[in-house]
Amino acid sequence: MPRAALLIIGNEILSGKFPDENAPWLAVHLRSLGVDLVRIETIPDEVPIIAESVRRLRAVADWVFSSGGVGPTHDDVTMEGVAAGLGVPLHRHPELLAALAAKLGPRMNADAARMADVPAGAELWWDGDLPFPQVVAGRVIILPGVPGLFRRKVEAIAHRLGGVPLLSRRLVSSAPETDIAAAMREAQDRHPTVAIGSYPRFEQRPWTVIVTLDSRDADALAACEAELRAALGPTLVEG
Amino acid sequence: MPRAALLIIGNEILSGKFPDENAPWLAVHLRSLGVDLVRIETIPDEVPIIAESVRRLRAVADWVFSSGGVGPTHDDVTMEGVAAGLGVPLHRHPELLAALAAKLGPRMNADAARMADVPAGAELWWDGDLPFPQVVAGRVIILPGVPGLFRRKVEAIAHRLGGVPLLSRRLVSSAPETDIAAAMREAQDRHPTVAIGSYPRFEQRPWTVIVTLDSRDADALAACEAELRAALGPTLVEG
Repeated sequence: MPRAALLIIGNEILSGKFPDENAPWLAVHLRSLGVDLVRIETIPDEVPIIAESVRRLRAVADWVFSSGGVGPTHDDVTMEGVAAGLGVPLHRHPELLAALAAKLGPRMNADAARMADVPAGAELWWDGDLPFPQVVAGRVIILPGVPGLFRRKVEAIAHRLGGVPLLSRRLVSSAPETDIAAAMREAQDRHPTVAIGSYPRFEQRPWTVIVTLDSRDADALAACEAELRAALGPTLVEG
Repeated sequence: MPRAALLIIGNEILSGKFPDENAPWLAVHLRSLGVDLVRIETIPDEVPIIAESVRRLRAVADWVFSSGGVGPTHDDVTMEGVAAGLGVPLHRHPELLAALAAKLGPRMNADAARMADVPAGAELWWDGDLPFPQVVAGRVIILPGVPGLFRRKVEAIAHRLGGVPLLSRRLVSSAPETDIAAAMREAQDRHPTVAIGSYPRFEQRPWTVIVTLDSRDADALAACEAELRAALGPTLVEG
């Protein structure tokens, strides 16, 4: 199963000026595609910090999505940071420069041309109806932070990620978590290929616990669900 | 100025089952308190991964807030992970055990008692009207993931963080970002104590660019704002 990480590059997110919308959307979308999201990091717009995160995330994930910092202004340093993380120089990509010139027309200037500077060796993915190609360098998929553009580009390139969808079940119990912890621990020990999660919900009355089961092994999932249903018995309130 | 990091421990966030609500809230709240949030990491519920993040985040921040993984079930491994990151053993805290027993009454059992296992040397902060103390170990403020509890506890301990509020200005320009990039770069070079951010908004017509200025130096902020107002001149649309 492919593993993915998300790197959000944004002082504006850390400072609370704008809420991030891309992480929650990507988490749900990757789940539907069957790609495991294993890390999210939100970091400042600083080249050495971006480079360090790129190195770390590439070591734990097959794909690293980056969000933000790809415009023409002084605070857009993602390309430089990714290049540093990959240990390659920046390179002005002729095909990207031509695409920019075609798109911007008379607005093309030296600052706009900086948007054609990408890590040396980067690929361009011209997928679907994208008006502008997706830049991918060393398994880092470099995306804009603007939510509408981020989503549109991820959807266009999704077929390349190699996902394998996950099977899931959800049980809801009215028991306090402390009463059912032992039953869940035993089921988890017997079914290591099933991930069992336990999430108490205190904001509603009566309190409930949401128990989630996820696996790519249908037989193990069914067996685990049956055992938990028997163990939680009268406390099950739905599902 | 104190620096903070947030460590979100949650398979349920990575898998998209539940959206995280604590990061956007904490970013805004820390900004109002004058504490710089410098990193957010979202990681799985696994002891070695938690330990590694705790080590890394303590090296860049004065305070590390952790969110999640502090209940009584098998997937609650935050205390163990933080202890491993600090290089200390877990220790059953007598005062915490007594508080739990008082709170749970007849529901107290072996799984519930695990919630009194904290990193050796941890402090308990009994602040405000908290029904249960805040556990803090090696500058790691260990919080529950449930949003209502997370907020209540952060608000109760906020006076301990030593924040220094930031001064901010916001300008809005109708110019394309490529046209004003040079003016912003020059202002940034002249005023290194002011952080200038540039955020294009494409979801509204006409397109605008939000320019933000942040500083703890009132004179530099005023000078920088005056220069940018002069440079952006006729393109300013409000503020």
